[in-house]
Amino acid sequence: MIGYPTKKGLPKINGSARSANASLNQSRGMGLEDDINESNEYYLETNRACIHKKPTPIQVVRVDYPNRAHAKIVEAYYKVPSTTDYNGVYRGKAIDFEAKETRNKTLFHFKNIHPHQIEHLKRVLYQGGIGFLIIRFTALNETYLVDAAYIIENYENPSLKSLSYAKIKEHGSLIREGLTPRLHYLDNVDEMYFKEE
Amino acid sequence: MIGYPTKKGLPKINGSARSANASLNQSRGMGLEDDINESNEYYLETNRACIHKKPTPIQVVRVDYPNRAHAKIVEAYYKVPSTTDYNGVYRGKAIDFEAKETRNKTLFHFKNIHPHQIEHLKRVLYQGGIGFLIIRFTALNETYLVDAAYIIENYENPSLKSLSYAKIKEHGSLIREGLTPRLHYLDNVDEMYFKEE
Repeated sequence: MIGYPTKKGLPKINGSARSANASLNQSRGMGLEDDINESNEYYLETNRACIHKKPTPIQVVRVDYPNRAHAKIVEAYYKVPSTTDYNGVYRGKAIDFEAKETRNKTLFHFKNIHPHQIEHLKRVLYQGGIGFLIIRFTALNETYLVDAAYIIENYENPSLKSLSYAKIKEHGSLIREGLTPRLHYLDNVDEMYFKEE
Repeated sequence: MIGYPTKKGLPKINGSARSANASLNQSRGMGLEDDINESNEYYLETNRACIHKKPTPIQVVRVDYPNRAHAKIVEAYYKVPSTTDYNGVYRGKAIDFEAKETRNKTLFHFKNIHPHQIEHLKRVLYQGGIGFLIIRFTALNETYLVDAAYIIENYENPSLKSLSYAKIKEHGSLIREGLTPRLHYLDNVDEMYFKEE
């Protein structure tokens, strides 16, 4: 058996101050990605979870070296991501999710999700990980956590091109918003995936 | 309880052919990163695990739009990664690791690991994930899987600046190499982390 480090041994990020300032200086609703990144930083600082956004995949074609210390990329292109944007570890489980915003007030269109993101979430579930989507209806100012299995089931139904707001409200879990963290989404994860424990 | 998709429902990558060709066309020992990427692709195709290399983090400064379809990045810089390079899900557990090569025949120097990678691995272990290093001694043509807790313990010992080859051989697990996958490293993971099940 492996000896895990104790909480005491975990690194301290000189952080509570930093993220509190960030929250005070910035108005809320900076966009879903910012909200999730800030929430993940808070969860990291408080040792509640270890979840990160993956870097955007970029194909580097040409690099210059204007001086010995720095490489300057002068030609590169964005690549289509082959996985979701966020993953990490929480309560012993692998967590994997994608975040999407829509201005639509009545539905979430499936064209917002890449097919390979659906495939990736399938693989995550098959391996026993926890997978979901965080969907924000910007016009309604509501953000939901929706289980990946439910998304996949509907996505693969050829008669459906979208999920209605009503269905998301019924099958998803409304994420509480606040100052720190901006999105209390791990409370929804606790409620949806760890309730029986 | 969430219904997981069955293996039958998993996407097929038109892949066995592709990776077999890749293995035949390329000589072995293309570098540790290539070997791990190819092994992860094989594990993905065979539905054994869902593990990916994270993209290299790049700070994009300036983007041109030579035509409507394509964004061309014309100024960008490499950022220091704040986590390890590889992570994913295997047998219900979160897997997180970093891969390092050394030409040294007698020791693995700790300067090869970034301090924040050690901090990240601590967090992964604290959350109940499986963390390790894959260390290749290129001159010896041997690759070991070494548990993160052992690495951290030694890294934080102020009297140590490195781990000797002998210690890695004793505490690590030698990874079998082959054609497909090039590195059978999940066999070592089974042996080290799932033996009691």
